[in-house]
Amino acid sequence: MTLEVYWGSGSPPAWRVLLTLEAKKIPYVSRLLQFTKEEHKAPGFLALNPRGKVPTIEDGDYVLAESIAIMAYLDRKYPDPPLFGRDAKESGRVWKAISDLVYYLEPAGLRIVVPVLFGTVEDNTDDIRAAVPELHEELGLMERRLSDSDWLALDRLSAADLAVYPSIEILLRAAGKDGARPLGLGLLPFAERYPAIEAWRNRIRALPGYDKTYPPHWR
Amino acid sequence: MTLEVYWGSGSPPAWRVLLTLEAKKIPYVSRLLQFTKEEHKAPGFLALNPRGKVPTIEDGDYVLAESIAIMAYLDRKYPDPPLFGRDAKESGRVWKAISDLVYYLEPAGLRIVVPVLFGTVEDNTDDIRAAVPELHEELGLMERRLSDSDWLALDRLSAADLAVYPSIEILLRAAGKDGARPLGLGLLPFAERYPAIEAWRNRIRALPGYDKTYPPHWR
Repeated sequence: MTLEVYWGSGSPPAWRVLLTLEAKKIPYVSRLLQFTKEEHKAPGFLALNPRGKVPTIEDGDYVLAESIAIMAYLDRKYPDPPLFGRDAKESGRVWKAISDLVYYLEPAGLRIVVPVLFGTVEDNTDDIRAAVPELHEELGLMERRLSDSDWLALDRLSAADLAVYPSIEILLRAAGKDGARPLGLGLLPFAERYPAIEAWRNRIRALPGYDKTYPPHWR
Repeated sequence: MTLEVYWGSGSPPAWRVLLTLEAKKIPYVSRLLQFTKEEHKAPGFLALNPRGKVPTIEDGDYVLAESIAIMAYLDRKYPDPPLFGRDAKESGRVWKAISDLVYYLEPAGLRIVVPVLFGTVEDNTDDIRAAVPELHEELGLMERRLSDSDWLALDRLSAADLAVYPSIEILLRAAGKDGARPLGLGLLPFAERYPAIEAWRNRIRALPGYDKTYPPHWR
């Protein structure tokens, strides 16, 4: 029974899982849900994931939702290459970097990305302005780390890189929208603002299978 | 070299780590920081964790912050009992339950707990009222799960139980404060509202070593 992966174009959590599948060369059946058709809220999908969210996987009769949980599951089932570290110290570093994403970078980023992409900037100006320095604080930490190391958590690719990358991409996609211009986000041109993160983005883009994971509607 | 654990009384993330240490019977040196004295913002501690947050551990020359990362580190270093599952499917379930905490229960809970405990309810009434139904949605999911099972993720204690428990306790502590009364949170009496969660709380409290982890200033 081949693994079935429910995802949506441009969903950062879904993208994490696709990147993980490619990094481990795991075969899978792609189930691309169309958000515009509300396919993620259809009864058949809600039976798999009552929250109506992607990514969700079906591996035989085993159903699992939430991107980080799916990455941990895949790493345990297909340990090569080990994306969550080879020992306790490495594992701690990978989960620390994922916690930095989940508790700091992602919440600050979403306070900007969501209003820009959903056209509600005017209703959220104060909150966006409060989120901008928090976001730059986190990007500054990443920039420093990636100035000393090619990868976020270890001396090689780990789950932290694959988890963080889509959150950076959607942030830069939002930053490039017309609606973001008056906000003065200070993110562009990104290669000048955060050159080490830019170099890391290029390393991720050069990974085998990367092109298959790129959000179709972003092309 | 004995593990040193920096924690603060009443910090749910720190409490998770103490519960994990007791569950695995790992010896440790307790470094209780006094928030009221700003000990978590003192230069010596900031050198260990620039965010100035507990929990943080020092294991020889290995320093690690962020509660979930520390729990994963400890589980890998001291695998008995395995708190993140014995195989891929179990591991996926544990991480799913932790994702439910991190992405849904904890953010909804903090929108209520923080203003109540820091006395800023009046400035946040709208946001608190919006958070209440989200919180009950998550508690309802927990209640259903715990009506069928003694534990959140597996058929035995897992990291999910130890991660979620302190977030429930601080929520109920906030709900019992005078400042929470006008909010109509609908949480108390908790044993009537959520009897299966209440029974699970009692199972956690009965764990060996639990008393040592209880926040000193809550007694």
